[in-house]
Amino acid sequence: MSPNSKLSIISLVAIALACTASIAGAQDPLPSWSDGPAKKAIMAFVYDVTREGSPGYVTPAERIAIFDNDGTLWAEQPMYFQALFALDRVKALAPQHPEWKEKEPFASLLRGDMKGVLAGGEKSIAELLMVTHAGMTTAEFEQIVRDWIATAKHPKTGRPYTEMVYQPMLELLAYLWANGFKTFIVSGGGIDFMRPWTQKVYGIPPEQVVGSSIKTKYEMRDGKPVLVRLPELNFIDDKTGKPIGINSHVGRRPIAAFGNSDGDQQMLEWTQGGGGARLMMLVHHDDAGREWAYGAESKIGTFSDALMAEAKKSGWVVISMKNDWKVIFPFEGK
Amino acid sequence: MSPNSKLSIISLVAIALACTASIAGAQDPLPSWSDGPAKKAIMAFVYDVTREGSPGYVTPAERIAIFDNDGTLWAEQPMYFQALFALDRVKALAPQHPEWKEKEPFASLLRGDMKGVLAGGEKSIAELLMVTHAGMTTAEFEQIVRDWIATAKHPKTGRPYTEMVYQPMLELLAYLWANGFKTFIVSGGGIDFMRPWTQKVYGIPPEQVVGSSIKTKYEMRDGKPVLVRLPELNFIDDKTGKPIGINSHVGRRPIAAFGNSDGDQQMLEWTQGGGGARLMMLVHHDDAGREWAYGAESKIGTFSDALMAEAKKSGWVVISMKNDWKVIFPFEGK
Repeated sequence: MSPNSKLSIISLVAIALACTASIAGAQDPLPSWSDGPAKKAIMAFVYDVTREGSPGYVTPAERIAIFDNDGTLWAEQPMYFQALFALDRVKALAPQHPEWKEKEPFASLLRGDMKGVLAGGEKSIAELLMVTHAGMTTAEFEQIVRDWIATAKHPKTGRPYTEMVYQPMLELLAYLWANGFKTFIVSGGGIDFMRPWTQKVYGIPPEQVVGSSIKTKYEMRDGKPVLVRLPELNFIDDKTGKPIGINSHVGRRPIAAFGNSDGDQQMLEWTQGGGGARLMMLVHHDDAGREWAYGAESKIGTFSDALMAEAKKSGWVVISMKNDWKVIFPFEGK
Repeated sequence: MSPNSKLSIISLVAIALACTASIAGAQDPLPSWSDGPAKKAIMAFVYDVTREGSPGYVTPAERIAIFDNDGTLWAEQPMYFQALFALDRVKALAPQHPEWKEKEPFASLLRGDMKGVLAGGEKSIAELLMVTHAGMTTAEFEQIVRDWIATAKHPKTGRPYTEMVYQPMLELLAYLWANGFKTFIVSGGGIDFMRPWTQKVYGIPPEQVVGSSIKTKYEMRDGKPVLVRLPELNFIDDKTGKPIGINSHVGRRPIAAFGNSDGDQQMLEWTQGGGGARLMMLVHHDDAGREWAYGAESKIGTFSDALMAEAKKSGWVVISMKNDWKVIFPFEGK
């Protein structure tokens, strides 16, 4: 074989590979989405902002998309998974705290009496959160979260929590990356509760996770620097806190925002307020058969009538889980 | 020309281009650095962490390098450039504030009496900062910074501040990117003061800038969402604040840290504390001829004897601007 014909074969292989890639690219990037208005809105938006010369064109650096987590990327029933984590932690820590048997809200919790826990109101919830989330170093807390997420099971499905994620949203994330987007989580959940697993579960690295936080303190322990988690709130990344968190961590205005509840309204407003091509979407939990159906009356993931009215007024797209998603969880049908 | 020979030519061109790129890659990536211990430490570290199978190998996702800004990436004399920005802003705002002619610290400042300004201590400085940094929306402040940085000139060199950056550090950033690193600024300076220009000047995008901040408030103005900058400190990203800021914004432990003053000690400790291959460096301003010479006695960019002792004890590499940098500013010799 002459050097030239060898090169020709390499070229042919290269071109064949390029063509295969191109055919693959022409496949439906959102196979779990029904061919309805939600999917059309996504595809039209991505086409508009990525096509050079189009009126909505946005440079890759400015293609920032933000996602709420609870109820948007993963489920949030029967209660926020981080709350279930806190309950599990109280049970795990109980042997070291014999005094909890007599002390509320711990006593109720250890008896399995959730009504008794909630009777203490916000003060009780805050106490449970601080006992389970503060007092250790950041490295220790990260390991606690890693251990829990690797072993804990959802009370209804018996699945690991990391499988209770929405397949259509995983496809949406991949579709946005393929089109030059940088994606961030902007969640009311704890920033340090999410970061240990978001890369593995969603493909979103820790530096692109924004969330609520408690204060930390830097100190030396046995000559080693540590950050100690203090029982003091630092930032609540919910409602008006979401645009503040976005400004603090991203420093750019997103062009696309995905949420599911009243806590996401301001982040959608902030996204839309930037002008130019924008996409705002809200996941509506209306599928009692495959997931849960809840909304205006729910204390978790409240989707109020006011939010629905705002969505209609502002042109935000409401995703019906029942109609727009052919598959909800990755494990379906497996 | 047959299709095959056409393909061969394409192949040859492609290979020629690849070879050129490879030769270019073999050129010195740090031409402004003298062949001394500082340059050797950088190159040995990068080689160690990027070579698969080496004991110090680090996956690309974990290759996080952090840089202080004032005195590390750009100059900080005769005072922090952000302070010079604040002084310029007071002068620009003075016509709207006739009362300042009688009110300290403004009266002294407008007379050019810096001693009089400083006589008011921290309270005066804080007042100047808040008057010039708060009260407007984030979008308005961004525009103010953009306008200033595009026109203001350094009092000694007459150059735009964006040219008062260190050429060897620009080369170091590019070298780290070429080796799969993600770089962050971690500065005591204002996060919103830096973000409008760090991409253009250093190639570091806003979402990779960590700094001090004031609080913001989300509100609707004429149906448009805005974030208003409040005259209230939110976070000071200096000394023990730097590891806290890194944990909050990056969520990973850096493997390389570059600073120049006492305010950077904890960020270097935190970086080193992660274990494994690590690189900690401190720029020492010891070149009165080409830049400035200052250190232990300076109020700006203090490099105390204690920090020098810590560097020696901990194996942190001190960069002598005089000996290690062949060029300091990009405009030299032009």
